[in-house]
Amino acid sequence: MKDIYIADLTGFEEGKFFDSFFLVLQKQQRTTQTNKPYLNLILCDKTGQVEGRVWDLSDPRISKEFDRGDVVKVRGSVSRFNDRLQLKVDQLRKAFAAEADKSDLMPATNYDVAVLWSELLGFVESFTDPHLKLLLSTILADPQIALAYREAPAAKQLHHAWLGGLLEHVISLLKLADRVAPQYPILHRDLLLTGVILHDIGKVRELSWDTGFEYTVEGTLLGHIQMGAVLAERTMDSLPKFPPRLKMLVVHMILSHHGKLEFGSPKLPMIPEALVLSFIDDLDAKMQAMTSEFDKCAREGKRADELTGKVWALDQRQLLNTRGWLGEVEESDSRKPEI
Amino acid sequence: MKDIYIADLTGFEEGKFFDSFFLVLQKQQRTTQTNKPYLNLILCDKTGQVEGRVWDLSDPRISKEFDRGDVVKVRGSVSRFNDRLQLKVDQLRKAFAAEADKSDLMPATNYDVAVLWSELLGFVESFTDPHLKLLLSTILADPQIALAYREAPAAKQLHHAWLGGLLEHVISLLKLADRVAPQYPILHRDLLLTGVILHDIGKVRELSWDTGFEYTVEGTLLGHIQMGAVLAERTMDSLPKFPPRLKMLVVHMILSHHGKLEFGSPKLPMIPEALVLSFIDDLDAKMQAMTSEFDKCAREGKRADELTGKVWALDQRQLLNTRGWLGEVEESDSRKPEI
Amino acid sequence: MKDIYIADLTGFEEGKFFDSFFLVLQKQQRTTQTNKPYLNLILCDKTGQVEGRVWDLSDPRISKEFDRGDVVKVRGSVSRFNDRLQLKVDQLRKAFAAEADKSDLMPATNYDVAVLWSELLGFVESFTDPHLKLLLSTILADPQIALAYREAPAAKQLHHAWLGGLLEHVISLLKLADRVAPQYPILHRDLLLTGVILHDIGKVRELSWDTGFEYTVEGTLLGHIQMGAVLAERTMDSLPKFPPRLKMLVVHMILSHHGKLEFGSPKLPMIPEALVLSFIDDLDAKMQAMTSEFDKCAREGKRADELTGKVWALDQRQLLNTRGWLGEVEESDSRKPEI
Amino acid sequence: MKDIYIADLTGFEEGKFFDSFFLVLQKQQRTTQTNKPYLNLILCDKTGQVEGRVWDLSDPRISKEFDRGDVVKVRGSVSRFNDRLQLKVDQLRKAFAAEADKSDLMPATNYDVAVLWSELLGFVESFTDPHLKLLLSTILADPQIALAYREAPAAKQLHHAWLGGLLEHVISLLKLADRVAPQYPILHRDLLLTGVILHDIGKVRELSWDTGFEYTVEGTLLGHIQMGAVLAERTMDSLPKFPPRLKMLVVHMILSHHGKLEFGSPKLPMIPEALVLSFIDDLDAKMQAMTSEFDKCAREGKRADELTGKVWALDQRQLLNTRGWLGEVEESDSRKPEI
Amino acid sequence: MKDIYIADLTGFEEGKFFDSFFLVLQKQQRTTQTNKPYLNLILCDKTGQVEGRVWDLSDPRISKEFDRGDVVKVRGSVSRFNDRLQLKVDQLRKAFAAEADKSDLMPATNYDVAVLWSELLGFVESFTDPHLKLLLSTILADPQIALAYREAPAAKQLHHAWLGGLLEHVISLLKLADRVAPQYPILHRDLLLTGVILHDIGKVRELSWDTGFEYTVEGTLLGHIQMGAVLAERTMDSLPKFPPRLKMLVVHMILSHHGKLEFGSPKLPMIPEALVLSFIDDLDAKMQAMTSEFDKCAREGKRADELTGKVWALDQRQLLNTRGWLGEVEESDSRKPEI
Amino acid sequence: MKDIYIADLTGFEEGKFFDSFFLVLQKQQRTTQTNKPYLNLILCDKTGQVEGRVWDLSDPRISKEFDRGDVVKVRGSVSRFNDRLQLKVDQLRKAFAAEADKSDLMPATNYDVAVLWSELLGFVESFTDPHLKLLLSTILADPQIALAYREAPAAKQLHHAWLGGLLEHVISLLKLADRVAPQYPILHRDLLLTGVILHDIGKVRELSWDTGFEYTVEGTLLGHIQMGAVLAERTMDSLPKFPPRLKMLVVHMILSHHGKLEFGSPKLPMIPEALVLSFIDDLDAKMQAMTSEFDKCAREGKRADELTGKVWALDQRQLLNTRGWLGEVEESDSRKPEI
Repeated sequence: MKDIYIADLTGFEEGKFFDSFFLVLQKQQRTTQTNKPYLNLILCDKTGQVEGRVWDLSDPRISKEFDRGDVVKVRGSVSRFNDRLQLKVDQLRKAFAAEADKSDLMPATNYDVAVLWSELLGFVESFTDPHLKLLLSTILADPQIALAYREAPAAKQLHHAWLGGLLEHVISLLKLADRVAPQYPILHRDLLLTGVILHDIGKVRELSWDTGFEYTVEGTLLGHIQMGAVLAERTMDSLPKFPPRLKMLVVHMILSHHGKLEFGSPKLPMIPEALVLSFIDDLDAKMQAMTSEFDKCAREGKRADELTGKVWALDQRQLLNTRGWLGEVEESDSRKPEI
Repeated sequence: MKDIYIADLTGFEEGKFFDSFFLVLQKQQRTTQTNKPYLNLILCDKTGQVEGRVWDLSDPRISKEFDRGDVVKVRGSVSRFNDRLQLKVDQLRKAFAAEADKSDLMPATNYDVAVLWSELLGFVESFTDPHLKLLLSTILADPQIALAYREAPAAKQLHHAWLGGLLEHVISLLKLADRVAPQYPILHRDLLLTGVILHDIGKVRELSWDTGFEYTVEGTLLGHIQMGAVLAERTMDSLPKFPPRLKMLVVHMILSHHGKLEFGSPKLPMIPEALVLSFIDDLDAKMQAMTSEFDKCAREGKRADELTGKVWALDQRQLLNTRGWLGEVEESDSRKPEI
Repeated sequence: MKDIYIADLTGFEEGKFFDSFFLVLQKQQRTTQTNKPYLNLILCDKTGQVEGRVWDLSDPRISKEFDRGDVVKVRGSVSRFNDRLQLKVDQLRKAFAAEADKSDLMPATNYDVAVLWSELLGFVESFTDPHLKLLLSTILADPQIALAYREAPAAKQLHHAWLGGLLEHVISLLKLADRVAPQYPILHRDLLLTGVILHDIGKVRELSWDTGFEYTVEGTLLGHIQMGAVLAERTMDSLPKFPPRLKMLVVHMILSHHGKLEFGSPKLPMIPEALVLSFIDDLDAKMQAMTSEFDKCAREGKRADELTGKVWALDQRQLLNTRGWLGEVEESDSRKPEI
Repeated sequence: MKDIYIADLTGFEEGKFFDSFFLVLQKQQRTTQTNKPYLNLILCDKTGQVEGRVWDLSDPRISKEFDRGDVVKVRGSVSRFNDRLQLKVDQLRKAFAAEADKSDLMPATNYDVAVLWSELLGFVESFTDPHLKLLLSTILADPQIALAYREAPAAKQLHHAWLGGLLEHVISLLKLADRVAPQYPILHRDLLLTGVILHDIGKVRELSWDTGFEYTVEGTLLGHIQMGAVLAERTMDSLPKFPPRLKMLVVHMILSHHGKLEFGSPKLPMIPEALVLSFIDDLDAKMQAMTSEFDKCAREGKRADELTGKVWALDQRQLLNTRGWLGEVEESDSRKPEI
Repeated sequence: MKDIYIADLTGFEEGKFFDSFFLVLQKQQRTTQTNKPYLNLILCDKTGQVEGRVWDLSDPRISKEFDRGDVVKVRGSVSRFNDRLQLKVDQLRKAFAAEADKSDLMPATNYDVAVLWSELLGFVESFTDPHLKLLLSTILADPQIALAYREAPAAKQLHHAWLGGLLEHVISLLKLADRVAPQYPILHRDLLLTGVILHDIGKVRELSWDTGFEYTVEGTLLGHIQMGAVLAERTMDSLPKFPPRLKMLVVHMILSHHGKLEFGSPKLPMIPEALVLSFIDDLDAKMQAMTSEFDKCAREGKRADELTGKVWALDQRQLLNTRGWLGEVEESDSRKPEI
Repeated sequence: MKDIYIADLTGFEEGKFFDSFFLVLQKQQRTTQTNKPYLNLILCDKTGQVEGRVWDLSDPRISKEFDRGDVVKVRGSVSRFNDRLQLKVDQLRKAFAAEADKSDLMPATNYDVAVLWSELLGFVESFTDPHLKLLLSTILADPQIALAYREAPAAKQLHHAWLGGLLEHVISLLKLADRVAPQYPILHRDLLLTGVILHDIGKVRELSWDTGFEYTVEGTLLGHIQMGAVLAERTMDSLPKFPPRLKMLVVHMILSHHGKLEFGSPKLPMIPEALVLSFIDDLDAKMQAMTSEFDKCAREGKRADELTGKVWALDQRQLLNTRGWLGEVEESDSRKPEI
């Protein structure tokens, strides 16, 4: 069991040994400016990444039998170079399967996935439209999809970029959609919620998350919009009584959910539910990115009433934490939304 | 009292006389292609506009003493030219002050303004932040502002372009904001609602609505964003204990609510409340524009499962009414949102 | 049999009667400025459109039993209004099924569709890749698709906007692709040609061409890119041995053929064949639009060395006919490309 | 008194000691690649910045009692690393208040601020419009504003980024405006000059210049356009007889002076004076940026007839110094415009 | 001699005869809605255009021997149709060469062209750079160029769109450049003025102004930038001692004077003189467009304190006349800049 | 004669000496972090660049008499720093003129330039239009142009960035144009081929390739489009019978070949040949960039079925090698197009 995390290392004394498990994201042989060879590793766990260095390549206590994607057990100590933390590796071996848990080794949602999943099923259960209910039950009953839906991150970098991020984002959106729907009587609640559940389902194949978060070749060539639309269409085709007109709307919602052609949607939203979906999807992603940025600043020791740096996911604007600015928040306040 | 409206005229028999009151939007002398002179009028009431023609300019029963902006009593009959309705004017005189009600003569909200207003005050009453509560109470207690806030349209053309439209839009937004706020714990509910109430307050001076809806010169040169920010800032300055840091956030929300520089906001939203405000403002405007377009199509006799024409307020896209397309709606169904 | 075409009417004497068959695109009751009622018709055949007017609505020789989409037999005469030709209708009745041929009544390709179709099959026959050959044989053997593929226009307005236009455009592209392919050894010829044949196949459902050229509701909501991709994917899924990696490339070519996100492609071309397809598709469409514009100017009597007006399909630029400008062309030269 | 400047160090012999005063912009503890700890400082004076290093952290002659923003007295010597100059710190202590002058320690205008200021007042004196004269006299008589107006830089980086830069830019613009005004009789000279003097006045609060040049939180959230407009509006409101129509124009000029919405102006220039202001403001900034770039190239030893590198403030274009290219200029010619 | 102008006709009594000379811009045979044939003419003189109608085509007093581009003598009377003035033609014949002056028949500068021309030569005379002085003397001594330079409009529509407009624009720019040059010591005055004189010289061939203002085919294919650059280059090549480095700068100024690639300049301004030229060229064009718009509003009877309509040449913005708004101007004030 | 190339060094053992010739692209004195001085060189040959270091500056076997642009003979050995190869210089002297061939020292086309050149002349020989044939014969007979045309790269970085690259690109385009021309009968083949041969001819002066590939000052200020147009125009002017209308088209093709204003073409393509030229020029450049990227990935040891990185010359998209992905290609397959 892993009990020392990368996020903890900041406070460690230099040179003092500790043991822990990490996932190897990168492994390269390098030399210093003065030509001394060493092994450079990028190691990660759920709390972040750290650069590791092996200086004595011939030390028998350093296994040679490991590669990118492996989980390793490391004994090492902390040092600092140009204010950046480094891990000096003293001993290293491949971990046994039972020694470490994948969810400890990559960034993962803070929520209980089982709870999120049952919330998702609860929403489907609440549908009054029998066709949409059947559609979603059918898709979510597929064991492969169900497994991937629970694991997938929502993005490689931008927002909810962690294991379970897709599900976390969808649950947040479902709650938001359920709040917004009664406001506008022209909205078909079940259709809107169907759009929420299916809009990013293509990401279960667009992304891979075995060794860090990457786009698959298929994901790069086709995109999650197309892959999700095909998955939905194929399932609806398999349901003998699914109304063709309703099918068209479900596919349209998936196609148009990015809201603009230049964001990769081949169609603009043309029905009320698609319009709302594109708005709340964008809003929820940006709110999550804001929250993450404030958390990151807090972790990095910034004062709560300072501006953040320029945030890439928000068009390079700087942000200000309202409560921090108004002095209403403890520096270390951690606000996990109750999604 | 007015009891015949322009919207009713479609069904009228040609040539049969009726009496009613109208507001004169335009008055011009013209000639036909064959050089026959006539008086061309644009007349309106709350249900729309119609072109009126006076063919006998010397008829003593046609008053000459009226102008753009006057309310007139007209006796006339309906005719049709190239499928467009015209009103042949037989008699015309200026109306007496007591004869017609302004709210009958310009497009106006379908809601009871007094109810909306008390809902607005109710929201302010619900605030827990004493400074923001005092700020809004002070502004809304100003009789001039209160009157204008109840009358102003939300726009000249795009959305909520009718008397009371501003208030209707704000109430819709307040309810929406109140639904969204609990979803994200980093949101300061009272600040968000303050932004909602004040974001368009500059429109009470940017627009004039005495004779049709027009931009004032001041509105054109300065814009409602600037005028609203100054109004808010001045009021906050008059409250001795208003926290300067909070003041900055209120002004920032007004400045940034259009969400993009190219839409006239000099700053992008940088606090969570400003981000949410810019999203829901845009969403509510577009949902209202969609609803209006579906209503217009229904009035014009389009089938409920047809696409609309290209809609200017929605980037020239065509729209489809979900419920109409799915056959779940009566053609004449009129869905007034319960805002 | 129809022997008088709308394009012939320019030279007709005013008032002299003739008989012919037309398709009714529009039928509306109107009144003149002086309130005289009349029936306004938009009539078309393969050579163009003309406005028809029925002045005596009660004339028993004018049938009332016809509507938009019907073929009618008309006796009438030509008149001119503001330099525009009008057709004064003297007699009118619905045509019998056998009296007129649809290909005479809508703009249609000048090529022999049977010849084009066998050229298309010839290209497929030439494939060396067995999977792609089977894929295309399977699709083109579907009788419904084969019929629609021969009839469909390539666009509503921009280019090849006539019956058979899709097939004509594809044959032109196949020849062009076959010329370009040997130039670049990295190109997979059969894959490129597969992309050419399938890239616009979704148009057989995106457009309807029974009564003029219109977008279907499905076409508007989903688009021919998505509809074509799904059709191709479904067929490949039905072929048990179709290589999954090849399937991905075929779908990618359909998705990316517009070349830019803002033109509705959800993905940019990322393989050599997709890049070439997007270039030659755009080039062929623009060359056809240029040729059509020069033909139109010639028909309208412009001198061959004058600039055209601003051409919408070419970003509003003006064009110059090289050969006309150099005096190497007879005014009436009609150059039908030998596709 | 400081008599050795950073710009002088280029010529210094390595290892030879000297003493001088610097402002500390940054102070960080670091280690070398081989883990040797050192103190890294960014030091500046009016001629530039230099990196300083303290290698012996325990040396008692190196005070520990100083921080970012302090002025320090340093004894050290020059070294070079990768062609970049470094300052090896031998001794260091906080300076006494009287020892160094702030205007020596940050980049500052080359002009005599007192002279510039009296030129500014002279322009106001020349006004014939009594209201505008009173407005400006009132604002410039405010001691706090007057002080800040003399100190503020015109920008953080782009142009006139030095102490007194705002005033220098304004004087240059006043002279330019005074030259341009007689050219166009529709121009109201005093209004144009008022716009020049007030257009950037919000920068006195948008920027801070105590420790390097930074944006304040208020400046980031509201921007100098808004802050300047409010300052002007408040002053005009305090003048009982200031004509409301004139006030509107003054505010409009401040709001619109960036010339485009996407540059942060919420309104486009709509009066002749605002149009001219937006042009000359942009031109003067770009001319200053060009001049600075040529000076920088000369300082860096580039030949006078070479192209500069890509200049960020001029859309990444390269520049050529006309006189240098034509051989009409000595390499070391320093042309200070006589503003 | 012409003594009645189109601008005068507004006040004329309907039906009363008058005689005058006009240039024929267009001649077309048409029919009314009720099929009555008539001849439709577009006639112009220096004050504007008017539609003329000949109703009796067989009247022997109406010559048939005239065409587009001819000057005609007309006897006719004024009528009005839909508020637009029409000219009912009673008699018409081609004018004799001596009867009318071309400068009376097309819009032309209000300045004395001879005076402007001698001002232009005066500027060249003031040069101290012998090469540039020789270059300009050579070009302006070419009789064909000199004639065209005095006649050419500066544009087809946007600004200075009248005979002599190019010269008027250049003189205004020369004066402006001469005011701006001393402000920036890095500017080479003679080079800047050379750029001003040559920047639009290609317009003498890009435009034709014999019958209205049109683009030539060459102008459309090559553009005045390219044509002017070639003319300048060819002349410099013919001057044996012209310095090659100076030549490059002159050509660069012509190429870059539109300031942006998307405005048709193949290069951005990279020397100070080119930067200034692009700014003042744009500014002078916009100031002229503003002045024209205010004049047009005054002629159309708008109040001096009203906003104009949306102005095409100024990005569709509305404008406000400062002096009119402030009440400092008589409605009919006509301000001809003293260029 | 050079027989060891930079591309070969990857496999060399560290520390083992070898001799070879290189071109010096850069020479700078530097110090290590620990203040040890050394000489840093950038050396190149036709296969790439390498960083060289001279550690013993006083070693008499290291000549001091060489500079940027010189060819040098070097004895040294390979070392590695941060995975990048370095060349440790042991001895160095300037090469004698006869010792090394320039085409060995800079990246150069893989084709035989003499063959390409005779193919070019063959195309000209095939022309049927006597004027265009004479024009090209005249230009290509100019010895200076002919030499430069054979040497010039087609670009500094984007595509065909090697000696002979311009000629290689033109031959590829000629073949492509010759394939495309018969497809569209409105195309004037000789004019199209003329455009191909001349479109980039300005690059022989826009770029310099003596010491690496650089833009000349003239090239930066005027651009190859303008320089090519002037060269063509001047030659046509020298041919007494060259038809003026044809000349205009040739110049238009050069001006418009970038296809868009924002890419530096002052005119859009307006004739069919210009449109085709702009398409095939862009296509050929992108196909070459794709091929180069695949080759680079192969050289860097990427698997043939992996995506490339983001490619700058293709709008940052990733690419996939079709044949590699389908497993139809050996990793090391090198496909030189038979242009």
